[in-house]
Amino acid sequence: MRRAIEIVEVGPRDGLQNEKIALETEQKLELIHRLEAAGVRRMETVSFVNPRRVPQMAGAKDIAAALPRAPGRSRIGLVLNERGFDRCLQTNCDEANIVICASDSFGIRNQGAGVGEQIAAMQAMMAKRPGKDALRVSVTVSVAFGCPFEGEVPAERMRDIVAAAAAVEIDEIVLADTIGMADPWTVQARVEAAREVAPSTPLQMHFHDTRNTGLANVFASVEAGIDVLDAAVGGLGGCPFAPNATGNVGTEDLVYMLERAGFSTGLDLDALIGIGNWISGLLGKTPSASVTRAGRFPPAG
Amino acid sequence: MRRAIEIVEVGPRDGLQNEKIALETEQKLELIHRLEAAGVRRMETVSFVNPRRVPQMAGAKDIAAALPRAPGRSRIGLVLNERGFDRCLQTNCDEANIVICASDSFGIRNQGAGVGEQIAAMQAMMAKRPGKDALRVSVTVSVAFGCPFEGEVPAERMRDIVAAAAAVEIDEIVLADTIGMADPWTVQARVEAAREVAPSTPLQMHFHDTRNTGLANVFASVEAGIDVLDAAVGGLGGCPFAPNATGNVGTEDLVYMLERAGFSTGLDLDALIGIGNWISGLLGKTPSASVTRAGRFPPAG
Repeated sequence: MRRAIEIVEVGPRDGLQNEKIALETEQKLELIHRLEAAGVRRMETVSFVNPRRVPQMAGAKDIAAALPRAPGRSRIGLVLNERGFDRCLQTNCDEANIVICASDSFGIRNQGAGVGEQIAAMQAMMAKRPGKDALRVSVTVSVAFGCPFEGEVPAERMRDIVAAAAAVEIDEIVLADTIGMADPWTVQARVEAAREVAPSTPLQMHFHDTRNTGLANVFASVEAGIDVLDAAVGGLGGCPFAPNATGNVGTEDLVYMLERAGFSTGLDLDALIGIGNWISGLLGKTPSASVTRAGRFPPAG
Repeated sequence: MRRAIEIVEVGPRDGLQNEKIALETEQKLELIHRLEAAGVRRMETVSFVNPRRVPQMAGAKDIAAALPRAPGRSRIGLVLNERGFDRCLQTNCDEANIVICASDSFGIRNQGAGVGEQIAAMQAMMAKRPGKDALRVSVTVSVAFGCPFEGEVPAERMRDIVAAAAAVEIDEIVLADTIGMADPWTVQARVEAAREVAPSTPLQMHFHDTRNTGLANVFASVEAGIDVLDAAVGGLGGCPFAPNATGNVGTEDLVYMLERAGFSTGLDLDALIGIGNWISGLLGKTPSASVTRAGRFPPAG
């Protein structure tokens, strides 16, 4: 056996956010409950974005209210600005995940603020957080490997945001390949660059499979010592900048690859395949996760 | 810049062999010519299998006849037995690629011979090959990472076949994940195991993307020092044992990942994307290669 790898399930948030069909609150809750029954212990359950801008994310308050805090479970709320952080503080969420886009153009389109303003907002949020035990706070560096508007994102840009997050003692930093264009060699170089400026902050990685490099980037990360990875059941999601592309790395594919190599994830692959098929059906699509289409190996049972 | 990686295009053979629609000889030749115009220098163009068993591979003799030998081009014929080898010898093919299945069950179903018989046939073929300059010969160890009938394939089984191939001075040995279930850690372990028994024979890798681990396995191989990789334009092919699964690692995806990281392949990615779209259209399917669906990054031009 190799070590344990923690998978943070982002299907209910990043997965659903980029699907054409918006689910009802009850359906989202069923997805969350099914995932927790399959072994998920940490999950992005809601986004405190304006539902007029992202209708797929409506119902955040009701979803959070339906999920009372419980030992061994962590529900994460995504936060794009101080207003979202204030909303998160009024809920049961165990964690807030603050997004900082690594390019000004992406930041202005996504959350109406350039990089400098987003860093200032993070500092303001951390100043009013009630305490680490009451609310864990992570920062996701979005478009950390490339931006659909600006193209290449320099490593220095990513590193400056990581350094600013470490300076206010963020609990965890997530490097995100939001548009799925990273290669595994660059992933290893950026993990190293992030560690230089944030040596004592745990790093987590978030990959999209847009150009099929998702699991290669996962392998590169695990080899570089990363222990926490995001994934979405069914490979939910898509890419608003590439209409025919697939979305997040599928949880089933990630669990298959890791467990086959002897890592433990604590997740039930057969249950995940069932959920991937069910949720893809609700969204009117073929599952993007390859293992859910092809079947596991060796076959179950 | 990093080093050069050689990509052996297997679309016209392994790609087309598992597609439902069988192309005409003229269409296959157009595919081969388009691929060579996009920079492909080494390609599996035909299979000397019985066309009554695999109708998609009909026309091998005519295809080979239409491709006179040319400097800087190598056309490979797949060979399953001595009869196929004899047919190959009567053509223009620059190389023969002999398949040896690493499980008895797969070998008996695929080519009517268990592992021992296949090794004996390889020895007989090598005894009559006209000389390395006249015909280069490689061996592909099929189902080297797992068999749909027998399940796990022990590393010792793969190693014995590799040792037997090295003993008759095969020019190159290909380890193939025929049903696409390998993980990258196992890939690195088996590359190492193969090198122990064939330290002076070049190793090449052949991956299918059935369970989304294809590019992770490529990355693991390149990091382990492998310089030659198979791929199929469009991600052509499928898996007869997993009806909804995708096929070979797509040449476009492989070129995208390698070139983005600074390796040189000598292939024109935009031309490959064009070919991937065209051939997928002929076969009535959406391209399996992710880059061909999503578009490259940064965008072309």
